[in-house]
Amino acid sequence: MPEDSMEKTYTCTAPVNIAVIKYWGKRHEDLILPINSSLSVTLHQDQLKTTTTVATSKSFEEDRLWLNGKEEDINHPRLQSCLREIRRLARKRRNDDDPGLDSTCLSYKVHICSINNFPTAAGLASSAAGFACLVYTLAQAFGVEGELSGVARQGSGSACRSMYGGFVQWLMGHQSDGKDSLAQQVEPETHWPELRILVLVASAERKHVGSTSGMQTSVQTSHLLKHRAESVVPDRMVEMIKAVRGKDFTAFAELTMKDSNQFHATCLDTYPPIFYLNSVSHQVINLVHRYNSHYGLTRVAYTFDAGPNAVIFTLEQYISDFIQAVRHFFPALTNGGEFIKGLPVPHADLSEELKQAIGLEPMPKGISYIISTKPGPGPCVVKDPTQHLLGPDGLPKNTVKQDSHNRNRHKNCDGDITATL
Amino acid sequence: MPEDSMEKTYTCTAPVNIAVIKYWGKRHEDLILPINSSLSVTLHQDQLKTTTTVATSKSFEEDRLWLNGKEEDINHPRLQSCLREIRRLARKRRNDDDPGLDSTCLSYKVHICSINNFPTAAGLASSAAGFACLVYTLAQAFGVEGELSGVARQGSGSACRSMYGGFVQWLMGHQSDGKDSLAQQVEPETHWPELRILVLVASAERKHVGSTSGMQTSVQTSHLLKHRAESVVPDRMVEMIKAVRGKDFTAFAELTMKDSNQFHATCLDTYPPIFYLNSVSHQVINLVHRYNSHYGLTRVAYTFDAGPNAVIFTLEQYISDFIQAVRHFFPALTNGGEFIKGLPVPHADLSEELKQAIGLEPMPKGISYIISTKPGPGPCVVKDPTQHLLGPDGLPKNTVKQDSHNRNRHKNCDGDITATL
Repeated sequence: MPEDSMEKTYTCTAPVNIAVIKYWGKRHEDLILPINSSLSVTLHQDQLKTTTTVATSKSFEEDRLWLNGKEEDINHPRLQSCLREIRRLARKRRNDDDPGLDSTCLSYKVHICSINNFPTAAGLASSAAGFACLVYTLAQAFGVEGELSGVARQGSGSACRSMYGGFVQWLMGHQSDGKDSLAQQVEPETHWPELRILVLVASAERKHVGSTSGMQTSVQTSHLLKHRAESVVPDRMVEMIKAVRGKDFTAFAELTMKDSNQFHATCLDTYPPIFYLNSVSHQVINLVHRYNSHYGLTRVAYTFDAGPNAVIFTLEQYISDFIQAVRHFFPALTNGGEFIKGLPVPHADLSEELKQAIGLEPMPKGISYIISTKPGPGPCVVKDPTQHLLGPDGLPKNTVKQDSHNRNRHKNCDGDITATL
Repeated sequence: MPEDSMEKTYTCTAPVNIAVIKYWGKRHEDLILPINSSLSVTLHQDQLKTTTTVATSKSFEEDRLWLNGKEEDINHPRLQSCLREIRRLARKRRNDDDPGLDSTCLSYKVHICSINNFPTAAGLASSAAGFACLVYTLAQAFGVEGELSGVARQGSGSACRSMYGGFVQWLMGHQSDGKDSLAQQVEPETHWPELRILVLVASAERKHVGSTSGMQTSVQTSHLLKHRAESVVPDRMVEMIKAVRGKDFTAFAELTMKDSNQFHATCLDTYPPIFYLNSVSHQVINLVHRYNSHYGLTRVAYTFDAGPNAVIFTLEQYISDFIQAVRHFFPALTNGGEFIKGLPVPHADLSEELKQAIGLEPMPKGISYIISTKPGPGPCVVKDPTQHLLGPDGLPKNTVKQDSHNRNRHKNCDGDITATL
């Protein structure tokens, strides 16, 4: 493979985001236009990220895609939307702005290789990080700059929010072509340094109902979802932005919990009903409310996406104490792995009063492990060429090794610890 | 005790009812005025009933009450409301209608003794049957006739619906004194002879959040409940009455399921959220939808009140087949008791195709037993004096025996079979 092929390889990373005002329901399926605005916190990539390498070469005969070590069908319509849109923007830039730019690569085929450092399809918004990373990396490869959240949105709605760090809103927009349905940063990741995030990974079964088909059924059948989108969310967006800007943890936490509950309520109001919360989720919810009630203060909040994993928000000063409560009511399996991964959490003793006040029956196999993290930045370019996932031949590096690694990770989803965290 | 005391003893029975359009939320706490109308099916007393004996005697020194063999505080405010209201109506009748009526007993104290033939507080609406039976029996004792659902309502909201057999609506009413918030029979119990009802008794833990406090919190905190009461239920009442009158099982079943789900959705939208459905309930819901989907026809419906027990509606022709599916996916514990109590269900074979189509993981300890029943009549007078629960001394017959019987029943709630069904 000639040297110039190497120079056309780009690698980027993108973050997971977790919505605190939830997106559920589209008004346009293909353009992915939502029925309400939403707001999320971008999680730190030191703990959770997607890495994507895009290579373009004259010698590639077709567009190809590898996800977590396995070649996948590139003809997925949403993937094609992103590719088409980036190529269109690239051509536009060459034509309108800077006709002098090199446009040879526009006709080249791409090879795309992407990996997550967390289990996919376990309700951890892997598609958001995945499409954000794809779009961001394609944009590097094709020399596209500027607003890209509208492109990412066409891959996976919530992916548009992963295009920024910190606190991000996705404005639903009103135009029929979706041009105004874009993400915006509300505050950067440095805004609220005390805010801490825990992902409580429940024994990670694959979700029963995918979010795409789930939200479609909800839009068609739930009276409550329509009311939520039209009459509840607009006020909540205003309140949430105010709580974030003012670093008002109580307001932020309560609204986060209420909105998570309301989203799951609309799933239950769907026909047939959709359940994403299981008995572990119920126990986490009860634990959080009793914990807060014991202290007479909202110290901790939960939120759940389309799966049983809880995402917990708290402040740095409370995290050790809360983690002890989680450890007590969800005793760790003694399988040799660490229970808490990611940002270190100092030890604290669990008070007898707190234990009594919570008074739940411990649930030994409930939580496999905890990922400790915080708000983080948006997508990043990886400059070190040794980090490329595609080799000079345009194929995934160490395919066989990655493949077996991925099989292990899948096995680990059922209760063990992912090796890459 | 003189002979005349015996003659002032009255015994009646009253039924449980299960709402298919749910009542959740009061607009007036003391008068028990609901935020929406509701509609229920009265279950047959051969399987589920409350029996109450009321005795009045000059020799009684105070009002006294025994529930399921144990003396309870008669000063419970809602009990007092019913007593006061019945005595007021009795005085009114003596004064207005028939001054010649004997009014001596109006000043007498009452002894009340009541038993259920099913576990209390297991989400089986025991308070509805209990207050309906109390009011109906007190009315006999004090010679009160006519509309009594407004009195029963003041004991427990849904009790007003247990004052009639068959299909009953509780009109929310609009007057501030509650005079127009009454139950009405939509169709009698003979209207739809093919309709069959199964109560799937889940391992009957006591409910975590009582319905009185639960609905209070929901009214205060759930945006979705307000919308449901104002904008969803009115249309559903019209549709449900139409489905019942037309014996349209598909319409009846689908609306029943949707309304149960929406009620539980508003519980989840409550802050802090309330969960009445557990993993057994989720499995029943999935089983019913997959069962119907396999046949391409809505043959079976579920509904859940403030507890995990499912109430199933189906038609006689489908019951054997459906029961086999329940037996397969909730294998009975081999504790020697019958799994199906009440109306006999003929045997049927479970087809391999159905088993495959449902494809759930069997849940061995999920359901303790099934009560097989059908729509039934309203409250009845028991003429046989040997059935009185109070002896000639005005005290419960065989108190000790009843007490131990009741203790046994309580123990049985955790998985065994109630002896009296």
